[in-house]
This record gives sequence, structure tokens and C-alpha cells, in this order.
Amino acid sequence: MTHKNFKNIDRVTYGRGSFSQLGETIAPIRSENNRYFVYIIDQYFHGKDLHARLQNQPEDLIYYIDVDPHEPTTEQIDQLRDKILSEKGLPSGVIGIGGGSIMDIAKAISSMLTNEGSSTLYQGLNLIKKAGVYHLGVPTISGTGAEVSMTAVLTGPEKKLGLKCDWTVFNQVILDPELIASVPTDWWFYAGMDTYIHCIESHNGIRNNAFSLAYGDQALHLCREVYLNEKAGQSPDNDDILMVASLMGGLSLTYSEVGVCHALSYGLSKIHGTRHCYANCLIFQHLEDIYPQGVKEFKEMIRKHKIELPQNVSKDWDEATLDKMATVSYNLPFMWQHAFGDNYKEIATMDYIKDLFRRL
Amino acid sequence: MTHKNFKNIDRVTYGRGSFSQLGETIAPIRSENNRYFVYIIDQYFHGKDLHARLQNQPEDLIYYIDVDPHEPTTEQIDQLRDKILSEKGLPSGVIGIGGGSIMDIAKAISSMLTNEGSSTLYQGLNLIKKAGVYHLGVPTISGTGAEVSMTAVLTGPEKKLGLKCDWTVFNQVILDPELIASVPTDWWFYAGMDTYIHCIESHNGIRNNAFSLAYGDQALHLCREVYLNEKAGQSPDNDDILMVASLMGGLSLTYSEVGVCHALSYGLSKIHGTRHCYANCLIFQHLEDIYPQGVKEFKEMIRKHKIELPQNVSKDWDEATLDKMATVSYNLPFMWQHAFGDNYKEIATMDYIKDLFRRL
Repeated sequence: MTHKNFKNIDRVTYGRGSFSQLGETIAPIRSENNRYFVYIIDQYFHGKDLHARLQNQPEDLIYYIDVDPHEPTTEQIDQLRDKILSEKGLPSGVIGIGGGSIMDIAKAISSMLTNEGSSTLYQGLNLIKKAGVYHLGVPTISGTGAEVSMTAVLTGPEKKLGLKCDWTVFNQVILDPELIASVPTDWWFYAGMDTYIHCIESHNGIRNNAFSLAYGDQALHLCREVYLNEKAGQSPDNDDILMVASLMGGLSLTYSEVGVCHALSYGLSKIHGTRHCYANCLIFQHLEDIYPQGVKEFKEMIRKHKIELPQNVSKDWDEATLDKMATVSYNLPFMWQHAFGDNYKEIATMDYIKDLFRRL
Repeated sequence: MTHKNFKNIDRVTYGRGSFSQLGETIAPIRSENNRYFVYIIDQYFHGKDLHARLQNQPEDLIYYIDVDPHEPTTEQIDQLRDKILSEKGLPSGVIGIGGGSIMDIAKAISSMLTNEGSSTLYQGLNLIKKAGVYHLGVPTISGTGAEVSMTAVLTGPEKKLGLKCDWTVFNQVILDPELIASVPTDWWFYAGMDTYIHCIESHNGIRNNAFSLAYGDQALHLCREVYLNEKAGQSPDNDDILMVASLMGGLSLTYSEVGVCHALSYGLSKIHGTRHCYANCLIFQHLEDIYPQGVKEFKEMIRKHKIELPQNVSKDWDEATLDKMATVSYNLPFMWQHAFGDNYKEIATMDYIKDLFRRL
């Protein structure tokens, strides 16, 4: 089809304290499959107050996952899927509670529970054969838009690329701004900047339309309230706003595309394991010639929140490393095409991309 | 639940020319039930170019409905439902092509095909017992937000009130800005003002939150581009924008509520049959004390597009008529509560409401 037919999240609950509605929300689903739920929770919450608020049943499986060492991998998903199936068979559903990585794991596990073989087989658009199990996302950090996107980004042995189809989209999302109150300031900043960069990239390219502009421009406006204006900073009001900005920033990509920063960011993360939102910030500061207004404003926000981004990172990268990074980035043609137009191949050569990495 | 768990449209296609994707969009659904589709189309399009573009199959039923004489009624829905079922049994799905009234008819028919008895039994929230058939909406005029809302507004013998539940929400919406290009200027204005008034009312009340404000404020911004700013007027670019504004204005009500203008508008329409969007405009011009900024801007837009709204309409209404109108409006407490707060009963008395009607 010429025009994308996009799948929405089936149901959305938004509001302070809405996390306490998790139990009643999933109750009608408990009769499906082997009548138990899998919780996938960021290790950060282990032993914290949130555990007591889970409203889980004795039959449920709870996995705390440390997402700090690396972004979600295909191997990790395959192993976790095998473990769940061998332990209790097909669950009623999967609940992800955490940041973008946990959202991606929950989306990927939901689909891989019903699709055979390794998740590496399904990296790409519409490769998944069967609907997954019910899956519900509860973001505890805002900005990536993973709660609304159809993409479950996975790093495989060969590529960093998402599982992407209508079935990967969450059946339910619970957006409780109280859950993002305790995010450390640096990650509050990096993750929020993922939304900011989504909107700048979505706007500046050939693929946008009135739909993506309306969402992206409002998400930018909301980012300015949270990170730049008079009342900027971590506050309950701004947490309320940031959670909506993340959703709208994600929806701005529905009819548009990310651009140069994300293409480079994928290369950096794939080769060095750098976390996505942080990688974006490391890169975006050096793209003034490509996104002049966006980078200018980004630097104002950096200053306002006293964020220190490392410089001269590239000095340790030899030619072979730069080649590997640039190869990953080069192989994301839809991002380069969006950013530079149909003659993007003349601009985004391997040499050009390596030069961009040398700016870091 | 304290926080609303709202149901999204399952799938959305947006873009110029996307109407031509209707056939392939519904193809996978054709195997359901008695393997045919019901088209419900605004009479305006009978014999027009759009008919040739329907991509319907020989087995499909096509009903052209004239929505000018009155807004959709419960009797009309019951009769059409009985006719469809007796003619060909349960269809694969229902496709509505038209304005807000046609959207409401398509939503209502979808549910009433599977729920027994008169639609008057189901006027209200969550009264419908069974999922309806697949239903798809194609708006040909923008502003009411009916394409995104869970409400299928029906006028019954006793009340004007919507069928409202998760199942009334469309499974699919196709938003093709080319279809709204031929809307006559006065209705382009009245319908767009429905969105404008949704946002003003949604914003000014006790129920809004950051979610509804983000959607409502962006929809207001888009309305200003279409109706007020330098490039205001009917143009392809503005049609693109207006279609998104209508969607966002509708979504701004998800976590908020309409207010005084809609409460009065329901009374006016129920007793006099006045079309919803037009009724809103007749009323809103007189609510300067309640929505000062909104009415001021509304009047600027009225002047800009040389719209003539009748004055002194109320001179023909006797006390009994005013009583009937005010009774309908009085019985919408959630709107008055949103607008005036929890002590709304002290303000929105029958006398107060009748006085508001006397302003017209």
C-alpha cells in the first residue's frame, strides 16, 4: 500500500497512580493459554516498593532483567523464550515494566513465544508469521517511544534491527507519571532527548506529512516545557507532560522516519554497546550542519541541566572500527533517504559516514 | 477504574489518495460471517465520482442515506439493522463514508447487528453486550471527531445519547484529505468549529489532564492555521491539517469532557432537529462570559470567512419549548460538572439554562 496502515496500541490508560489498575486490567486475559502471566521487570526495581504493587498471582513468573550491561539481544530473547516455554508453557500474556529495553524485550518475547526458531529470523518488517500473546507495557522512564512503536529493537550477531509488524504493537499500555519520578537526572535527560531527536529528524526529511508534523511539533513543544522553559526540570507536572511527549514523539514517526543521528547511533551501539539514548546525545551535538536549529536548542538544554557529554571519543577508534560502525549505519538506507532525499547515495557514502563518526 | 482505559481505533491509514486502498484493506475481512460488506454512504455522493472508486463486490449492499432531514435516530438504526439482517444476514463488516452522522450510523449499525432489541436499550456507557461486526470509517468532512470517538450519537424518543463502549470504536479509519476538498464553505466552517469548540471545552474544566491538554492545544493550534492565520481557507494543505485536527480534537476528549456549548447544543438539536455542528456555532457565539478567549477568537474566524449566523432565534420559543430544551441539557450533568466544578448544581439550574437559551 502507498499509505501506511498503522496499528495503534489497543488500549491506553494514562494518569497518576494508574499502575495500581494493572491487576484488574489483565484479569479478563487470565483465562487465555496456560493461565499465568510473565512479568519482565527492570532489575532496578528488585526489592523496591514497586514489587509490592505488582498485584501478581502465585502462578505468575517474574523475571528481573539487568539491562545495563547491553541492549536486548536476539540470543537473550531466544533463551528467555525457551526458558518460559519449558517452565510453564504458553502464558496468558507478557508484562514489561521498565525503560525502552524492557519494552523491546516484552514485545519481542510476546511474538517469539508463538513463532518458531531464532529471533534473528524475524529481524525486519512483517517477517513474523503468527500473532504473539497479549502484551502490556508499563514505561518507567519516558522518551524512547518504545511504548507506542511497532519496533522491538534487537541486536543480533549480524545486525541491530527491530522485529516489526502489527502484532509487535502492545495490546495495552499503562502510563503512570508517578513511575518516572525517580529516574536519575542524566537518564531523564538522555531518554527525553530521544523524543526530542525523533521529532527533529521526523520533521527534517522527505517523508513527513501533516500527521507526523502535528505529532512531532507538539512533542517538541512539550519537550521545551520539560527541558527548556521557565518551569523546566524534574517535577510532577513535567513528568505528566514528558510521558505524553514520548507517546507523541513515537507517533510522529508513524508517517515519517528518523534520520542521520539514529543511523549513526545504531552503528555506535552495535559496535560499542553504547546505550541508545546516550549514543544519540553523543552524536547529535556534532550534527549542527545537518540539523542547525535542533542542535542549537539541544545545546541550550545541555547547558541548562549541566549535562556533561564526553568529547574526543573517536580518538580510540582505528580505521577497522570506523569501518564496522559505518557499515552498520550505511545499511539503514531509509534513514539516509529520509534525511537527504532520493539522491542520498551521493551524499551518505561510507567515507562521509566515517567522517561523521570522527567528529565524536 | 479511576483512570480511563481507552480503546484506540485499531488501524489508521492517512494520506492523499488513501481512499483507493479501501478494497485491499478490507480484503482479509471478507471471509467473516456471510462474506459481504454493507456500505453506508452519504446521499450527497450518489452518482458522483466516489461511487466508481468504491471497489465494492457484487455481493455487497450499498445504502445511500440522506442525513440532511435529521440526525441519526434510534428508529432509523433499528429499521436499517432489521433490513440488512433479513436481506443477507450478518455481514463481514460495515463501511461508513460521509460526515459525523454517517460515522455514527456505521458505528451504531455494527453493534446493533449483534445485539438484540431496539438501540434505545443501549443508549449510554457500556450497555452493549456483544462485540459488533468489523466497521470502517471514511470521513468526507472533518471536525466532529466521530471517526475517533467511542460514541455513536443517536436521537431516541426520550433522549439524545450515544451508544458508547470499546466495541463502538472503529476497527479501521481511512483519512484521505482529498475527500474533504469539495465540502461547501459553510459546512467546512461549522464542522471545523466542532473541533475548535471540543478543544476550548476540553481545556476549560476540571477533568482535563496533560494528555487531553497536549491533544487539545495542538488541535487548537491546527484550527488556527486552517481558519485564522495568513494561509487560512480551504486548500489542499489545510485539508491535510484539518483532518489531523479533527482526530486530535476527538482524542482531547478521551481524558476530558465537553462543556456548556455541547450541553446546550444537545437540547437545541433534540427539540428542533438542528444539526450538531451548526447548533454549536449558534450557541457558542453567546458564551463570551464562560469561554472569553475562545468566543473572541471564534468571532474573528466568523468574520474572516464571512459566515452569517442567525440572531434572535429564541424569539419564537415559548416557555414550554424552553423547558423541553433545558430539560435535555440539564440531564447531561457530567458536562456541567466538568465546566463548573463539583458545585455545578448551584450554577446550572433549569432557570440558568433557560436563560442561556434565551440569548440565542
